Amino acid sequence: MKTERLQAYARLAVRAGVNLQKGQELKLFIGVEQGELAALIVAEAYAAGAAEVSVEWRDERIDRLHYLNVAPERLGRPKDWEIARLERECALLPCQLYINSRDPEALKDVSPALLAAVRRERHLHTKRFKEEMENRYQWAVMAAASPAWAAKVFPDLPESEAVERLWAEIFSACYLEEGKDALALWAERNAQFRRRSAALNAMHLKSLHFRNARGSDLRVGLLDGSLWVAGGETIENGVFCNPNLPTEECFTTPDRGATEGVVYGSKPFALRGLLVEDFWIRFAGGRAVDCGAARGAEALRELIATDEGAAYLGEVALVPDSSPINRSGLLFFETLFDENAASHIALGQAYTANVRAYKDYTRAQLSQMGVNESAVHEDFMIGSADTDVDGVGFDGREYAIFRQGEWAFEV
Amino acid sequence: MKTERLQAYARLAVRAGVNLQKGQELKLFIGVEQGELAALIVAEAYAAGAAEVSVEWRDERIDRLHYLNVAPERLGRPKDWEIARLERECALLPCQLYINSRDPEALKDVSPALLAAVRRERHLHTKRFKEEMENRYQWAVMAAASPAWAAKVFPDLPESEAVERLWAEIFSACYLEEGKDALALWAERNAQFRRRSAALNAMHLKSLHFRNARGSDLRVGLLDGSLWVAGGETIENGVFCNPNLPTEECFTTPDRGATEGVVYGSKPFALRGLLVEDFWIRFAGGRAVDCGAARGAEALRELIATDEGAAYLGEVALVPDSSPINRSGLLFFETLFDENAASHIALGQAYTANVRAYKDYTRAQLSQMGVNESAVHEDFMIGSADTDVDGVGFDGREYAIFRQGEWAFEV
Repeated sequence: MKTERLQAYARLAVRAGVNLQKGQELKLFIGVEQGELAALIVAEAYAAGAAEVSVEWRDERIDRLHYLNVAPERLGRPKDWEIARLERECALLPCQLYINSRDPEALKDVSPALLAAVRRERHLHTKRFKEEMENRYQWAVMAAASPAWAAKVFPDLPESEAVERLWAEIFSACYLEEGKDALALWAERNAQFRRRSAALNAMHLKSLHFRNARGSDLRVGLLDGSLWVAGGETIENGVFCNPNLPTEECFTTPDRGATEGVVYGSKPFALRGLLVEDFWIRFAGGRAVDCGAARGAEALRELIATDEGAAYLGEVALVPDSSPINRSGLLFFETLFDENAASHIALGQAYTANVRAYKDYTRAQLSQMGVNESAVHEDFMIGSADTDVDGVGFDGREYAIFRQGEWAFEV
Repeated sequence: MKTERLQAYARLAVRAGVNLQKGQELKLFIGVEQGELAALIVAEAYAAGAAEVSVEWRDERIDRLHYLNVAPERLGRPKDWEIARLERECALLPCQLYINSRDPEALKDVSPALLAAVRRERHLHTKRFKEEMENRYQWAVMAAASPAWAAKVFPDLPESEAVERLWAEIFSACYLEEGKDALALWAERNAQFRRRSAALNAMHLKSLHFRNARGSDLRVGLLDGSLWVAGGETIENGVFCNPNLPTEECFTTPDRGATEGVVYGSKPFALRGLLVEDFWIRFAGGRAVDCGAARGAEALRELIATDEGAAYLGEVALVPDSSPINRSGLLFFETLFDENAASHIALGQAYTANVRAYKDYTRAQLSQMGVNESAVHEDFMIGSADTDVDGVGFDGREYAIFRQGEWAFEV
């Protein structure tokens, strides 16, 4: 791993990812094994004029021990000082940068019911902060290659080689090439994303119909106000940031109660350390009423049972089969990557920023309008090279959206 | 590095170091590069019945960036949530385990004045918590081999070999031998330490006189109530813990105003990332009135100028030349080790637990009695193979304490 490459990546994170502005604070969430990258990001943030940077180190080996030894009510309940910290964050709105490098199976011996219980408890106490802060602070999720994660993606390579290969994939997925200006390139990609989402928004779609040879036959209903978003976003403070790097998707918020049919997963996905493979979900009246999986079925069921909203969709996203991440042929066991390899849906919490004029409504009003609420948000890959997607507008017009896994219209 | 060895070390930390009792919390301070050890300690703590363990990861590369980029008043002032956390700790008194693995020169480009300013500011806000908690919670300081630290101790070895060698030294200094019961061994050592400190306390010493061929001629005055302590300590809650592992010293709290003469350092010491070498300090009326050093003189002067108490002694400690840490012939650039290689004195804050009946007095009263107060506490090695130490009791009796660097009396 060359330091210059990591430095360029740190620069992308700070300048394009959260797009930190002079005088802002940055909160960095990063794995303990990423000391070098963390230092580069912190240095870049100060160079960009950060007032102060704080680092929250993550270690899922330690998380696992907490789960196995502390009661979920205790583990999920924030301490008074954590609430005080959340209050400070609500007031000051630091940029939040999440660098994911999790071992996809780190929590495989922790029961999904326990994980869900902790998450429920935590959500209970932190929901009001999340709601208050939503769309008001710059954030970005990116990735870093840890030995444990790399070993999962490249099981046949020795550790250091696997880590190097995974870094190469991360850089390539982020269009980070030596001698090229990554910030300019992402500005260009964002212009392309804006044209794509503008075209989708102009269709004013009422529903999407996914079909493929595997047997998927799913109609996802959209809201009158569903807004397609792709690439970066302008936060309420007027700053443009890139919440996901890499990103390949155009996504929107569905109508909570209007999904019908069955869908088959096209790729496994990592669910809190467990792997869910060959799964299917049946929806009726928007609700996931039945599901199954060759592996991880219990985790999937526990996820759906986390709370009322966990059984309903909070996102639908379109990703062409030609996505470079898909073309890599790799399974990353990390949503940030795998969700950008295929069209997907998510159970759980919906993004309010994907609803037109969301600021005119309270979260409760949005919920009544069909914007889903939950303690969870989990993406499932459903797109494949043989997937067709058709759309129907609120005016009854029909649109070919995807044909054989690719965009059916140019922008 | 064998995991079994690390596991035994983690066990020593939890069972002997802080001696965690069922239902207690543990707060672990550890370097981000020590993920494996951290997980072993957390697992051992839960096995010992910890109610909850929290980990505060340390990374001095990041600390350095904070120092270089954030104003000291801001950096030193705890946030409201940090105060809330300190309040919780004062109420619950979790065990505190510090695993040191610092790069001795990590902060070498940060000005000593800046470091002192941050420390002063922090002390201002946290002093009341420190005072409230003193002697009321179990704690231990131990070490772990990081690549940066190991490279400093073994500059000629390749990284992995240096780390392995440093671990071997740490294990050996902690008397951790394969197939031997380290907990039983430390119980035995503690019995020996108790005999030694009982003998010193029976002398009821009024002063110690250090002399050697280098030119040291220092009289350290002791308090009527100065109590010699060695090895483990029983905390106010009745639990016996080992605050330093390794430890070889017998130490006590001197009379703030009663140190006279000049003393020459016998080993370099690491001061907040800087190395101070070949130094000397002259005392008059207890106060360090002059000092010099071949290297790091500025840092030494800044340390002494941190606050009023930083110019006065807060500790005097006796360590025989035959200490295994000294016999290793290594300079560790880490006080926990180097202070156990030679007799030493410390500038700054004194331990109240080294004063007879300290609980009958307030901190202010103790201060008036001559127990030093400061935001700092820094140890300096002054003992050598040719050092003689003589003692004079409050009754005028004279005692030979050390002859040619060794204890002059048996216990």
